[in-house]
Amino acid sequence: MNVSYINPFIQATLETFKTMLNIEAVPEEPRIKQEPIPTYDVSGVIGLSGDAKGTVAISFPKFMALKVVSALLGVTLKEIDPDLTDGIGEMANIIVGNAKQHLNGFHLSISLPNVIVGRDHTLVPRKDISTLVIPFKTEMGNFSLEVTLKTN
Amino acid sequence: MNVSYINPFIQATLETFKTMLNIEAVPEEPRIKQEPIPTYDVSGVIGLSGDAKGTVAISFPKFMALKVVSALLGVTLKEIDPDLTDGIGEMANIIVGNAKQHLNGFHLSISLPNVIVGRDHTLVPRKDISTLVIPFKTEMGNFSLEVTLKTN
Repeated sequence: MNVSYINPFIQATLETFKTMLNIEAVPEEPRIKQEPIPTYDVSGVIGLSGDAKGTVAISFPKFMALKVVSALLGVTLKEIDPDLTDGIGEMANIIVGNAKQHLNGFHLSISLPNVIVGRDHTLVPRKDISTLVIPFKTEMGNFSLEVTLKTN
Repeated sequence: MNVSYINPFIQATLETFKTMLNIEAVPEEPRIKQEPIPTYDVSGVIGLSGDAKGTVAISFPKFMALKVVSALLGVTLKEIDPDLTDGIGEMANIIVGNAKQHLNGFHLSISLPNVIVGRDHTLVPRKDISTLVIPFKTEMGNFSLEVTLKTN
């Protein structure tokens, strides 16, 4: 994987948390996902196609997903409902849309967000393409960003 | 959702099972997914972008995923391992690639397959776009195809 693709996604995540939620997201050391380790409970997943093909996923523990979308919508969500899952999809969409603007010179097309819910569900890494996992810390909790990209 | 988009995916699924595995897949009545009901244990998910944006997911119970990929590779898989998940991703890729050929006149770009593993993981339907679920029966077991598409 061309790591120059990763920074725009990290930057976009920081900016989105700052702009939308007014909180700091602190990235930790990225690592290559070699085993199909489970993600958190709620994931927003976006497919990329064009000059680079792949996937970007943002994954939250349930309690944090509730806090993030509650703050985003200005309401208090207590359970996983359609507002919550649409909100997580929208966060993924904003982050990838923002990152795309930083990836000048690449033609990239993005799919609609998918949202996956399930305790310990796993987004399985491919054998042939590296997935980078970037853990983030925030005052609302910890979450992760996973980027899998195959460049032409 | 424009239902004329759905038939190519059903057709492609039948053809892929016939060509790759030499078995008949029998589609049952499609239904609109209104609640975030869990899928099976292993899902191959592909994002679409271009003239239509959305997602196609093919989801198998674990025992059937093992049979399908074992037949595909000519080996006997007994557990969920990288060969299995890559095989499920490849099945999704073949079906969507085949369907794309039947969707003449539309510019569609497809992402790499994502594979999700987790007992009772749920692909959550969006509030604003319908997801159609098509159950299939085969001699290897039952599986489902989910198509979410937003046409321009």
